[in-house]
Amino acid sequence: MSSTKPQKGWRNKVHEIIYEADTPMGKWFDILLFVLIIISVLLVMLESVKWIDATYHRALFIMEWLVTILFTIEYIARIVTIRKPLKYVFSFYGIVDFLSTIPLYLSYIFAGSQALLALRAFRLLRIFRILKLVRFLGEASLLKNALKASREKITVFLFAVLIVAVILGTVMFLVEGEEAGFTSIPTSIYWTIVTLTTVGYGDIAPITPPGQLIATLIMLLGYGIIAVPTGIVTVEMGKRKGATAAPDSEKYVHVNTQACTTCSKEGHRGDAKYCYNCGSQL
Amino acid sequence: MSSTKPQKGWRNKVHEIIYEADTPMGKWFDILLFVLIIISVLLVMLESVKWIDATYHRALFIMEWLVTILFTIEYIARIVTIRKPLKYVFSFYGIVDFLSTIPLYLSYIFAGSQALLALRAFRLLRIFRILKLVRFLGEASLLKNALKASREKITVFLFAVLIVAVILGTVMFLVEGEEAGFTSIPTSIYWTIVTLTTVGYGDIAPITPPGQLIATLIMLLGYGIIAVPTGIVTVEMGKRKGATAAPDSEKYVHVNTQACTTCSKEGHRGDAKYCYNCGSQL
Amino acid sequence: MSSTKPQKGWRNKVHEIIYEADTPMGKWFDILLFVLIIISVLLVMLESVKWIDATYHRALFIMEWLVTILFTIEYIARIVTIRKPLKYVFSFYGIVDFLSTIPLYLSYIFAGSQALLALRAFRLLRIFRILKLVRFLGEASLLKNALKASREKITVFLFAVLIVAVILGTVMFLVEGEEAGFTSIPTSIYWTIVTLTTVGYGDIAPITPPGQLIATLIMLLGYGIIAVPTGIVTVEMGKRKGATAAPDSEKYVHVNTQACTTCSKEGHRGDAKYCYNCGSQL
Amino acid sequence: MSSTKPQKGWRNKVHEIIYEADTPMGKWFDILLFVLIIISVLLVMLESVKWIDATYHRALFIMEWLVTILFTIEYIARIVTIRKPLKYVFSFYGIVDFLSTIPLYLSYIFAGSQALLALRAFRLLRIFRILKLVRFLGEASLLKNALKASREKITVFLFAVLIVAVILGTVMFLVEGEEAGFTSIPTSIYWTIVTLTTVGYGDIAPITPPGQLIATLIMLLGYGIIAVPTGIVTVEMGKRKGATAAPDSEKYVHVNTQACTTCSKEGHRGDAKYCYNCGSQL
Repeated sequence: MSSTKPQKGWRNKVHEIIYEADTPMGKWFDILLFVLIIISVLLVMLESVKWIDATYHRALFIMEWLVTILFTIEYIARIVTIRKPLKYVFSFYGIVDFLSTIPLYLSYIFAGSQALLALRAFRLLRIFRILKLVRFLGEASLLKNALKASREKITVFLFAVLIVAVILGTVMFLVEGEEAGFTSIPTSIYWTIVTLTTVGYGDIAPITPPGQLIATLIMLLGYGIIAVPTGIVTVEMGKRKGATAAPDSEKYVHVNTQACTTCSKEGHRGDAKYCYNCGSQL
Repeated sequence: MSSTKPQKGWRNKVHEIIYEADTPMGKWFDILLFVLIIISVLLVMLESVKWIDATYHRALFIMEWLVTILFTIEYIARIVTIRKPLKYVFSFYGIVDFLSTIPLYLSYIFAGSQALLALRAFRLLRIFRILKLVRFLGEASLLKNALKASREKITVFLFAVLIVAVILGTVMFLVEGEEAGFTSIPTSIYWTIVTLTTVGYGDIAPITPPGQLIATLIMLLGYGIIAVPTGIVTVEMGKRKGATAAPDSEKYVHVNTQACTTCSKEGHRGDAKYCYNCGSQL
Repeated sequence: MSSTKPQKGWRNKVHEIIYEADTPMGKWFDILLFVLIIISVLLVMLESVKWIDATYHRALFIMEWLVTILFTIEYIARIVTIRKPLKYVFSFYGIVDFLSTIPLYLSYIFAGSQALLALRAFRLLRIFRILKLVRFLGEASLLKNALKASREKITVFLFAVLIVAVILGTVMFLVEGEEAGFTSIPTSIYWTIVTLTTVGYGDIAPITPPGQLIATLIMLLGYGIIAVPTGIVTVEMGKRKGATAAPDSEKYVHVNTQACTTCSKEGHRGDAKYCYNCGSQL
Repeated sequence: MSSTKPQKGWRNKVHEIIYEADTPMGKWFDILLFVLIIISVLLVMLESVKWIDATYHRALFIMEWLVTILFTIEYIARIVTIRKPLKYVFSFYGIVDFLSTIPLYLSYIFAGSQALLALRAFRLLRIFRILKLVRFLGEASLLKNALKASREKITVFLFAVLIVAVILGTVMFLVEGEEAGFTSIPTSIYWTIVTLTTVGYGDIAPITPPGQLIATLIMLLGYGIIAVPTGIVTVEMGKRKGATAAPDSEKYVHVNTQACTTCSKEGHRGDAKYCYNCGSQL
């Protein structure tokens, strides 16, 4: 694309690098960003471990500033090169990018605001977008589509599970006393879900015979109904078998990673000249 | 329906609002009831949390009375507007409605009867009926049918699991001593089901090598046979793929939410004039 | 059958009652036996609970003798009415029946032999045979066949899981110290299987960072490979869809519950005159 | 093969015994090796149990030397009889074989190097190769192929699970304090995976209401998405149904257990005369 439109200004070029991944520079930028996000998340992790923070505080602090400055540059570049900056600023990724960048600056104004650094973990979600580069895209979109198609059925299922958990949790609260840890109905419901989903921490466990009997029924119920989401997803995936087998068929068209400089929409055809969403030239 | 039969009395009109959901008023009533049930259950939950009950006792008490009065009005209206009140009173929902309404009155006669309030959680089941309104109905009925068709197979499966649990629980009781928590055969069976269903609280856990060996086998068994209910439900759902794809085919007919004023049967055709169950005019 | 062969002696008649379930008497005997087995297992359970045994010792003791006497009569009747008693005595059910009957007699000779009573739980397996009566038979045999067909694949799978558990358990023993409960390699392997199967008691849990990292990998592995037995059984059941739909097709013939008086083989055709196994007249 | 090429030297004959399993001697060698590996792993296990090591130290020590000597002979024989020894030495199995043999010798030079003995567990993997002998091969390869085909989808899935675990773990670290065991972000992530995979040790468990609420959501998420790997594998296995039904079709050819004496490649056709990989005579 860059070769066919030599009249583009530096903003367009930077936009292409930051928002897209079809040019070599764009790919390198994405890989760099990928590494930077991983490092930034690792930094937050390491700082949360007491002895590491105590021993390497200075090094971590410097690294933290380095990451913050790079993120700041990226954030400014993203705002400057897009035609409708507000759309980016108030988009999900825009807010996440802002919240990942700001905490260190804030820590000089408000004490304790460094806790916000943990929000940086949400930047990991951007990795899913970067992954558009790699060959896993097809697999991921297959999974996504199967889950999307199963969404309503799974919602109904989880809703039913929740109601059952409320009823059984209330029953357990009446049956078991406080001694066993069933101190309130919300706590009992928490325990019921811990049991239904077969997680079973054991921090709360029934101790009276009737309580253990009901617990047994809840377990068998949970053991039996796990079949439901599994059945839903399996059937949905089974339907998609054909689609995987023939991804190059007529119904599918190659899509590049280009993003519209005006409205940020993605998923344009490889040969698209205008944005399918806002009609502005790509 | 209300427009074609102007001769209907106020009872029929109220019946239409309370028992059905095809008129705007009926829909609003269902939404209101939905909200009221959620509030009433939340109230019971909050009261069960000690510090909340201590701090906001008065507010909760007033709310409780408000909910009780509204439930009382609804209960009386349901009895008055139906032609065969006893059929409703002794139906499952009739009993649940009664038990959700009565505890606060009873608490002036018998101390401690407020514990019955928790029975109100069962009213949540009515939500499933209210949900007939929303688009999830198709999904829910698909799940319900698949589970219904799998019911016998899953019953056989759970029955077999129970027998295996009794046998293995007895064996574990003989192998492990009381030290590890296997104090009686029922407790051992409880532990076996906790293990078979992969819940694993850890309140009871084998400590002798032979006990741990048998525990290992039980776990692998449970890990392997979870495949059975999953397989059953998946196959049943797979069969229903066609049915979902063509819900408007000849085998299906549109059903409204109207309930017979005489026998309370539901599921009448959209164009039905007489109840398919008792033949009385709708 | 009894009506067409009036020349049969009392032994054949008793055999028909005890071993078969096609005559009304045979059905009643099976139901009675079913109830008796359930009672006998409940007795053993109740005796294992200390406070129940202390309070109702006398009543339980009398019940125990009653059950033992009835089991004794049944055992003798089974031996007397069959043509080849040794075949029954040394069959699986013969041994279980003997071991369920003998403990109370033995307790007068050897102290502590009452623990053998627990073996009575194995008699529950006979319930599966009695269930031939009910309509669940078709469902049960479908499950059994699907599991049988999956047996080899699941064996290979469990074998692979075991090897992986041994390797990972050994690694965890080296990584985690005794402090966290990994006191020996067998214990570590036990923990690995507890984790792989997602049971997770928590009696042993890693405390060092590398140990927790490996534990995380084991969990994700277990979470991922549970798909394997599920996939196997689902596919096998899917194959059997046709068979369930047409249980009355030519490939199937009605089978009664008659057992050969000579060799005890079952599964004869409804119109069979001779045992398909030993050729003796039925 | 041995009968048609009488000119082969002793090296070829030993190679045939050690590396292949088509001759009676080769089969016996594999069975012996199978038993020896099991014994060697059991020895390491027993030594790790303190009281066993204390009581039977001498016997275990002698057994250990016996196994080590036999492994040494096998290792030397493997090197001597192959045409390109370095290829074997630096192959995965070559390194495992070496590490399984060396520790006892090393223990005379470096104290504590006996811990390396535990690496012997990896030799269990060789059992998978030996199993080529038995009828389970077809089943195993079916499982392997289905897993191989699902690999990419499961990788994407586990990657997504990991990112979700990092985000949710960070959130839980902020919500729950150190009191409940969420001492650092890595520990919180560990807990999140323990919960997502429904393992649920209970060594760390949320104690604040918001923490328990988020924990509940994580559990329901984990309970719901376990459907994804299951769906993937089930669909893959379903595709392979045909292949299992017709393993003798044209697409399949009988393969023997012969290994090329030059490059160690396996999977030659039963009637192959030359290695399909390096072209040297078999």
